[in-house]
Amino acid sequence: MAMTLYELAGADPAQRFSPYCWRTRFALAHKGLEVEAAPWRFTEGHRLAFSGQALVPVLVDGDTVLSDSWAIAEWLEAHHPQPSLFRGAAATTRFINAWADAVLHPALARLILLDVHDCLAPADQAYFRTSREARFGQTLEAVQAGRDQDVHAFRKILQPLRMTLAAQPWLGGEAPGYADYIVLGSLQWARCVSEFRLLAKDDPVFGWRTRGFALFGGLAMAAKGYEP
Amino acid sequence: MAMTLYELAGADPAQRFSPYCWRTRFALAHKGLEVEAAPWRFTEGHRLAFSGQALVPVLVDGDTVLSDSWAIAEWLEAHHPQPSLFRGAAATTRFINAWADAVLHPALARLILLDVHDCLAPADQAYFRTSREARFGQTLEAVQAGRDQDVHAFRKILQPLRMTLAAQPWLGGEAPGYADYIVLGSLQWARCVSEFRLLAKDDPVFGWRTRGFALFGGLAMAAKGYEP
Repeated sequence: MAMTLYELAGADPAQRFSPYCWRTRFALAHKGLEVEAAPWRFTEGHRLAFSGQALVPVLVDGDTVLSDSWAIAEWLEAHHPQPSLFRGAAATTRFINAWADAVLHPALARLILLDVHDCLAPADQAYFRTSREARFGQTLEAVQAGRDQDVHAFRKILQPLRMTLAAQPWLGGEAPGYADYIVLGSLQWARCVSEFRLLAKDDPVFGWRTRGFALFGGLAMAAKGYEP
Repeated sequence: MAMTLYELAGADPAQRFSPYCWRTRFALAHKGLEVEAAPWRFTEGHRLAFSGQALVPVLVDGDTVLSDSWAIAEWLEAHHPQPSLFRGAAATTRFINAWADAVLHPALARLILLDVHDCLAPADQAYFRTSREARFGQTLEAVQAGRDQDVHAFRKILQPLRMTLAAQPWLGGEAPGYADYIVLGSLQWARCVSEFRLLAKDDPVFGWRTRGFALFGGLAMAAKGYEP
């Protein structure tokens, strides 16, 4: 029986943009595992009650119920060892995971916050506006209005990524690994909701993203979204 | 025959503060390798001419001459495999190396720039002042004068480190690895030249640094410097 992945969706259930869900999507594809998607919305916390918490991704495999993208990746690695997601590098990949959560996402959110809002179902829009405007201390419109300037700070934040990719084709080394899927998931978040141009075409990160979005038969590009 | 490590020194040749040299110091200790230290100063580029470049660390092992801390670490790993520095995680450790270079060091430099200057030999002081004031666009005194404020931004930058260390004892996982030595080297740079208090005592990074500085019989704490 295929696993089920609960993942965040927009008003259009085909619009799946959560960076955390994309980490799991890429990890499942890496393992060659089939999954049935169950679209879920911000205001449907009750539908995840069986998981003992209220956030996606949630992965269900028979009697096993897993939440938290990192815990899911570790479980997949333990139960489906080949091909390896981490190839011995889980500990240092965790730093990249923390960097994406703590540094990359807040900077990226400033560029696409209103676009995320605009793709949500009406009930989710109300929740999203209230919670995010409290977090940013500004209206969604005001946050995103600064993006033509903020994108420069965002691109600067990518510098460690750029330096790493100058030395090797993937964050995981010679082949992609979970470190790549973490950051590709973040960039896919933006692609799914926004036309905004995140990267300059001559940025090495641009070329890496193109290669990453083409993995697994174009998994990322097949999802509803915009030209990156 | 022991290897020779050319490393940056202050006016007092016992004062060795380069974060890049400390990466190599820790890596050599991890491998259990003996090394003879050759103190070197900023204005002695000619003494490194044999290495084909002008920066430390330079490691000499018989006929082999190596420069660049990352290249040295890779060479040590290839020629002295056990105990492993990377344990399979070289590719993702490279991201942490880039993060330290591109993000951690510029923020840390603002807190200790004048203190670095003050420990240098006179000829090095003139070089250091000219080159660093051009880079920062301010006098050394002006840069460091803001450190009581700048330290808050610095501590915020450590957030991915803090999140990683909340989940595992070392950046390398259950045991220290090169990822730890990179960041410990950065913090040791500060300890060697400055009394300034970088970390709050209740910061998980503080406890990790204490454990890291105690490694290899207290290698880091045995070097000339201040109470961290």
